Amino acid sequence: MYYQPEIETITRSELEKLQVKRLKETINIAIQTPFYSKILKEKNLSADSICSIEDVRKLPFTTKEDLRNNYPFGLVATDMKNVVRLHSSSGTTGNPTVICHSQKDLDNWANRVARCLYMVGVRDTDVFQNTSGYGMFTGGLGFQYGAERLGALTVPAAAGNSLRQIKFITDFGTTTAHAIPSYATRLAEVMTEIGIDPKKDTKLKTLVIGAEPHTDEQRKRIEELLGVKAYNSFGMSEMSGPGVAFECIYQNGLHLWEDCFILEIVDPETLEPVEDGEIGELVLTTLDRDAMPLIRYRTRDLTRIIPGPCPCGRTHRRIDRIKGRSDDMFIVKGVNIFPMQIEKILMQFKELGTNYLITIDTVGNNDEVLVEVELSDLFTDDYSKLQQLTKSITHKLKDEILLTPKVKLVDKGSLPLSEGKAIRVKDLRNNK
Amino acid sequence: MYYQPEIETITRSELEKLQVKRLKETINIAIQTPFYSKILKEKNLSADSICSIEDVRKLPFTTKEDLRNNYPFGLVATDMKNVVRLHSSSGTTGNPTVICHSQKDLDNWANRVARCLYMVGVRDTDVFQNTSGYGMFTGGLGFQYGAERLGALTVPAAAGNSLRQIKFITDFGTTTAHAIPSYATRLAEVMTEIGIDPKKDTKLKTLVIGAEPHTDEQRKRIEELLGVKAYNSFGMSEMSGPGVAFECIYQNGLHLWEDCFILEIVDPETLEPVEDGEIGELVLTTLDRDAMPLIRYRTRDLTRIIPGPCPCGRTHRRIDRIKGRSDDMFIVKGVNIFPMQIEKILMQFKELGTNYLITIDTVGNNDEVLVEVELSDLFTDDYSKLQQLTKSITHKLKDEILLTPKVKLVDKGSLPLSEGKAIRVKDLRNNK
Repeated sequence: MYYQPEIETITRSELEKLQVKRLKETINIAIQTPFYSKILKEKNLSADSICSIEDVRKLPFTTKEDLRNNYPFGLVATDMKNVVRLHSSSGTTGNPTVICHSQKDLDNWANRVARCLYMVGVRDTDVFQNTSGYGMFTGGLGFQYGAERLGALTVPAAAGNSLRQIKFITDFGTTTAHAIPSYATRLAEVMTEIGIDPKKDTKLKTLVIGAEPHTDEQRKRIEELLGVKAYNSFGMSEMSGPGVAFECIYQNGLHLWEDCFILEIVDPETLEPVEDGEIGELVLTTLDRDAMPLIRYRTRDLTRIIPGPCPCGRTHRRIDRIKGRSDDMFIVKGVNIFPMQIEKILMQFKELGTNYLITIDTVGNNDEVLVEVELSDLFTDDYSKLQQLTKSITHKLKDEILLTPKVKLVDKGSLPLSEGKAIRVKDLRNNK
Repeated sequence: MYYQPEIETITRSELEKLQVKRLKETINIAIQTPFYSKILKEKNLSADSICSIEDVRKLPFTTKEDLRNNYPFGLVATDMKNVVRLHSSSGTTGNPTVICHSQKDLDNWANRVARCLYMVGVRDTDVFQNTSGYGMFTGGLGFQYGAERLGALTVPAAAGNSLRQIKFITDFGTTTAHAIPSYATRLAEVMTEIGIDPKKDTKLKTLVIGAEPHTDEQRKRIEELLGVKAYNSFGMSEMSGPGVAFECIYQNGLHLWEDCFILEIVDPETLEPVEDGEIGELVLTTLDRDAMPLIRYRTRDLTRIIPGPCPCGRTHRRIDRIKGRSDDMFIVKGVNIFPMQIEKILMQFKELGTNYLITIDTVGNNDEVLVEVELSDLFTDDYSKLQQLTKSITHKLKDEILLTPKVKLVDKGSLPLSEGKAIRVKDLRNNK
């Protein structure tokens, strides 16, 4: 039932002892870098400053900007000859962020991913197909190494080419696949187009979905379309990649591996901890990274801790699905809006498909929000029914986002398709 | 100097003893499959039939067709739960060929690749950038695991996006890169275009080139363009991938790791062994594969054994660069022609670039060969000189391929560019 029972069901007090020990080790490693050496010494902090896990709050935050300013290797805490891999972001908006790994870092990472997959029932008898891009994208090598570690038969399909993906699924008896949510939906659509019933003609039973924000409604739809259980995966390249937090079979939040990370949720304005259950920014400290430890890294991801124990018996706390990022948020007429809020409403309508696009534009002197959404196959083209549906969606959206968007129902297949991360928001305003 | 001295400089007699021992083990594993069980029993063969290495000739051949007919898992000799990865060809001309690997197979493979890289001077202080596609293409994960095993800092750039590749090379201090030859040339061109001098502005010193047939002239040009040593790599997915044979620093043939493979060169018609030094088809038997051993696999690659010892001290025999494949060969007016023969001639002309295209078409009742080749940057546009050059190329080509092609010099950049494998031959004949 557990991949590493002694770690996964460790008592909270033992876990905290382990965290304190590892945090001290991490500080001793990090302090080898000029960056951490400087900011820790300025505050007169060292490993000795840590007596309890709460003491982590004494430590300074690390941000994406810090990574960029120290590009490429300024935060590496070991001799470069111990570094065996780096992953770099594309750096479209400045210097890329680069994360360096020692052999031990890669081992620990593979172990975390194996632990996640085992948690949702993947075993050495399973066939695991990875539809992630490989190379720099950590969803590729991250899941590859983790699934191999577990002993599953890995199918490194890589991204794109849906017909080939489906041939692999049917021919190799794929039981588990990793896909971003929009691509999982796409695969289901292509299967239907070519006359393959995912429930009868494939052995798919488990899907790992992540890397793209999505709602529980979207997850349920994927589960129905493909006849699978779909589990939410959380990771980010700064925290190595996938394997940071993962749902268990109860699908009620993602266990964050607290032997590897210190978990904090802070108010993004005040940077003070929020109450358990309150939404805030996820802040993570690595506890088992040699080459490039990060202390109190501000992930910019918004989530909350789900209070209380989980029936699965794991003692590592759960975070809620990601509620959005500061970066995703757009402000219209002074209102903060997350694409997730809109998606959540759209998914409640069985008449709608899964593809939608939000466009914000200046019309006259006003900012307007246009929500285009595809109809599902099944829905009528009766004009009055369409009008009524539009009205009903608009009403519900207004309740959620507190302003009235323009809603446009479009034919299935008329919005741009994505084989990569879906583009959900276009901001065309000149005053943004 | 050697990654595994005891194996790389093993005496021939010790090596043959090891081969016999491993061949027996391999037969005992292979016979677990219905395919090998049937064809070995038909000939009354078993591990006991092998007393010396010459006895390998008693064994039946395995062909690509056999792999296809037993698609996908018919040649797997172990419980599928021991299989941790498969690599599949794209299968554009029939069932794909699928190769399955156990954890031990992947370990052995990574070790072979590490051995190759170490042989040409790559160490744990080097930065190794892999421009291969990842996923199913074995040049991706094959070099990734091998270079990590060696302890180099791997940069899993994956294929394409030349500007980003060059940014990685300069920013991360890449010293060694793996690229197919046409892409190495392309990278050099783009560097020049954006004002980067590969010799001054990068730390590149070693290039690993393979996966695409090329001449020694093309290699020398790559070495001059990038200011590197370029080493020829031979591998194929049926033999796991890269790491089968590799040049040492003497660049006089590729040491084939005979502790892992039995090397035969046979006449493709009679299937009898050819004399040492004679060109024939390379036939390989795996000696350290658990999940899917292959016995006397006909690679379709044409090469020869380079006789005599190598000054590097390694005792594993050397094969010559691949001379072409039966599949690449085209027949015009009864003459067998390999694209390599044409490339070899073109590369002798400093006035020419590296990009060329061979088109065979029916004109009237005749098959004609058109060779289009790009001029280099430096060359004049003086018409009489161009005419003279065309004549000279035509003459040399006729000497080599025994018929007179039509030669057309074209401007640099006018032939299709490739970021993947270059397409060198177009056969448009209706009677082919």
